[in-house]
Amino acid sequence: MTTFRITVAYDGTGFAGWQRQANGTSVQGLLEEALADLAGGPVAVTGAGRTDAGVHALAQVASFRLDPPRDPLTIVRAVNARLPPAIRVLAAETAADDFNARFSARAKTYRYRIWNADVINPFERAYTWHVPGGLDVAAMARAAGRLTGRRDFAAFQSAGTPTETTEREVFASTVHGGDGALVTYDITGNGFLRHMVRAIVGSLVEIGRGRRGDGWIGDVLESRDRSQAGPTAPPEGLFLVRVEYGDRLKVYVEGP
Amino acid sequence: MTTFRITVAYDGTGFAGWQRQANGTSVQGLLEEALADLAGGPVAVTGAGRTDAGVHALAQVASFRLDPPRDPLTIVRAVNARLPPAIRVLAAETAADDFNARFSARAKTYRYRIWNADVINPFERAYTWHVPGGLDVAAMARAAGRLTGRRDFAAFQSAGTPTETTEREVFASTVHGGDGALVTYDITGNGFLRHMVRAIVGSLVEIGRGRRGDGWIGDVLESRDRSQAGPTAPPEGLFLVRVEYGDRLKVYVEGP
Repeated sequence: MTTFRITVAYDGTGFAGWQRQANGTSVQGLLEEALADLAGGPVAVTGAGRTDAGVHALAQVASFRLDPPRDPLTIVRAVNARLPPAIRVLAAETAADDFNARFSARAKTYRYRIWNADVINPFERAYTWHVPGGLDVAAMARAAGRLTGRRDFAAFQSAGTPTETTEREVFASTVHGGDGALVTYDITGNGFLRHMVRAIVGSLVEIGRGRRGDGWIGDVLESRDRSQAGPTAPPEGLFLVRVEYGDRLKVYVEGP
Repeated sequence: MTTFRITVAYDGTGFAGWQRQANGTSVQGLLEEALADLAGGPVAVTGAGRTDAGVHALAQVASFRLDPPRDPLTIVRAVNARLPPAIRVLAAETAADDFNARFSARAKTYRYRIWNADVINPFERAYTWHVPGGLDVAAMARAAGRLTGRRDFAAFQSAGTPTETTEREVFASTVHGGDGALVTYDITGNGFLRHMVRAIVGSLVEIGRGRRGDGWIGDVLESRDRSQAGPTAPPEGLFLVRVEYGDRLKVYVEGP
């Protein structure tokens, strides 16, 4: 068996998310079907981030094993030929036997995009959260900076999700914007709880609207109580933008 | 009667184009329905550029007359409330009585976007023409520069389209790209024949692929024969980006 690692971009609009499930078309499911066609038998694909329905990826990383192995460029071409154009394999390479896209990841970066203007740009309607009205971007940036470090993010986790621990380390948490209509939130961490980024963004927007001060986010964090945080921001603004493994991915084809 | 002028952005994916017609949903038709709701009677809307099915607009300009007049901001809000999110009115203002978005226009600028990489970026699949393989962007740029001036563009007009004259003046015609995967063609002129931009782009890509030298575009132009030019590029790469009237549009809301 040879282990492979691929980089995948997808427009999450209309998909049921990354993870294969009974109802709806998932990115993982389509990849597994395309690889099964190529391999002539079932192939299990593991993704670095299990993005929710409607969430996008610029560079999701996934791993799987093939026997016999295939040429990486053949994998890129054969799988893309079987996938809808909303999902594209950007690169493939062989990996260490024990490489697992999920468990080997050292850091993941998500970006959340907000369109802050009275009127949504029609080309951004599936790729941003439309938030009309004034936003205090400086206050949002100050609040975002309060989330770095090893912390218990239970307050930003969807209720009822079982996990071993709700502690995660956030390496960077920044808000940019205020020039034009686009406000972006970037967060890099060693792991993320379910809906964590979207709950953080919903809370940051409460602060941006002036309903809360920027120190409030620290109180929410300390409460470990989901009901204290802001609403969960909608999925269409969220992008998985990078997964880091402490090594360099050999890119066979040009990415987005 | 008061004349109004509006700026409209639309994602042309899935629409039958600007112009109202028997089959398919048109941008003009949706605007006229929304304005009729507001005005309580039929309103005829004239657009600066009659974009084809699948073609986009960042800033189409349209005109219409209302009696009694309405507050421009009310028009923006009321019409947007009735339109699908793929079409947004960005601005509205009153105009001179004799203003006509089509006949008063002094210049229009179209942009054509090409994604030149082995693999399409899934987020660009509805907004670029995917052209894999090498493209000689410098040769395309030289060829594009040969199209400026007052010329007979009959060779770049769809066959069987009746027009009074096939002479048009092109003020600027430029190709940019070669850094990443995106290659763009911008053309500004006092008017455009049907499918003219797409036929020019189809010809530029023939040159980019090395099938023709950059001087060939001059031969095509002189031939006044559509069969001499390259194929018509697909609609999804084309954007109407600007219409100029020699004055400034008062923008009520932030654009894309």
